[in-house]
Amino acid sequence: MIVIKIGGSQGVNLDAVCADTAQLIQSGQKVIIVHGGSNETNQISEQLGKPPRFVTTVTGFTSRYTDRPTLEIFAMVTSGKINTLIVERLQKNGVNAFGLSGVDGRVMAAHRKEALRIVENGKKLVLRDDYTGKIEQVNAGLLKMLMDAGLTPVIAPLAISQDGDALNVDADRAAAMVAGAVQAEQLIILTNVPGLMRSFPDESTVIAHLPKAGLEQALSFAEGRMKKKVLGASEALELGVPKITFADGRTEHPLLDALAGKGTTIS
Amino acid sequence: MIVIKIGGSQGVNLDAVCADTAQLIQSGQKVIIVHGGSNETNQISEQLGKPPRFVTTVTGFTSRYTDRPTLEIFAMVTSGKINTLIVERLQKNGVNAFGLSGVDGRVMAAHRKEALRIVENGKKLVLRDDYTGKIEQVNAGLLKMLMDAGLTPVIAPLAISQDGDALNVDADRAAAMVAGAVQAEQLIILTNVPGLMRSFPDESTVIAHLPKAGLEQALSFAEGRMKKKVLGASEALELGVPKITFADGRTEHPLLDALAGKGTTIS
Repeated sequence: MIVIKIGGSQGVNLDAVCADTAQLIQSGQKVIIVHGGSNETNQISEQLGKPPRFVTTVTGFTSRYTDRPTLEIFAMVTSGKINTLIVERLQKNGVNAFGLSGVDGRVMAAHRKEALRIVENGKKLVLRDDYTGKIEQVNAGLLKMLMDAGLTPVIAPLAISQDGDALNVDADRAAAMVAGAVQAEQLIILTNVPGLMRSFPDESTVIAHLPKAGLEQALSFAEGRMKKKVLGASEALELGVPKITFADGRTEHPLLDALAGKGTTIS
Repeated sequence: MIVIKIGGSQGVNLDAVCADTAQLIQSGQKVIIVHGGSNETNQISEQLGKPPRFVTTVTGFTSRYTDRPTLEIFAMVTSGKINTLIVERLQKNGVNAFGLSGVDGRVMAAHRKEALRIVENGKKLVLRDDYTGKIEQVNAGLLKMLMDAGLTPVIAPLAISQDGDALNVDADRAAAMVAGAVQAEQLIILTNVPGLMRSFPDESTVIAHLPKAGLEQALSFAEGRMKKKVLGASEALELGVPKITFADGRTEHPLLDALAGKGTTIS
């Protein structure tokens, strides 16, 4: 089984990803897709007069500040628009895709971070009304039931909290948790760069293979959004996923290329 | 098994509907929910600078004109926002709800109307790029599989066409098709009026019981959106659903009231 994370950034060739997915499934492979939606959520948030606010946590990660109105926009865009369009495109390719988010059937249970500690203009602040979570449990049995029925799950990055609140979760780390829970043989993280670069944005510095021992160091040179992908990869490895690939989602064959060894492989 | 249609109009008491649903499920009843989303789709369409356009078909029904951008807004709002919020609210009530739309796993397959024949300012027009459909098949097996796993399906009014396109479908008629497919004992259509009125909007003219034979006549006096509900009821009866209730979704106990016989019962 392969878990594929489709990035929410601009440039990912969704038609090609869906065509490749169909080819994999026809060859007998089982696939689960997890997707993001950051770019489109930003656009629609702007249009709705609720511009996105990104914050930097004290641990150095970038997060979307998700108050309740933002959560509802995030759910609308990721679970309603992006998820439906991916499912539709897969269906057109003959894949019986089935969209869901982690709220459905409590497929992804997360711990809501009660307080988000951020740094703004050099000052430490605490944000409280944030609907962001860290996934603690994935219901692999439910995903397997869907797959046994011939369905290909397509998962939007929402989880459910201990109190039953929908939460925004990081899609890379969600994909890692899903891959671990279903004991996937590989996690492919598609993005709009050719792989992990030692010196971003110099594409000649893409690292072809990164051993587990190099992950901690990678956290220091990974830029912005790549940091969370490295964190996700590290979590997936911990959960027993033997191989994680950061691959270019913009090519004519993003998945076939990744399976052929392009991009950055962590194992 | 009971199928409940939650109206997309303003005023429906969603908290009360979810609490009642939890009570029914705790008492051993199986429930499927189908919801609309017209009112909220209108609001968000306006905010996104794509105001809704309603047309009157030559057969006298009111329809949302759904070009591709409208379809994507409709998917976003119904499947992403409304569906997630209902699932979340049911989860908070202890119901293991599972949201989906008819696109997922091709649960609702529809025929896309190639051309929409409308009347505007007394003139007949044909609209072509419309993404609206009439449901032809419901995958009851998939819904039963979810229910057998202890999940309560919550269905957004999208279906999939013969060509794999997502389509906007009428939620009342979708609920009727679902009720027929799963052989529900009752279909409860919650709305923001107390029932079918012989003389709208005079609430003293609510009809308590309408025999099957009275349905055709009801189509003539049912106002606006109620026409499609009457059509849905008529289709559900044809499909073998023995009892259809139009009930007030604004009360403290919309479902318990409906089960106690309030509203309009068609059987």
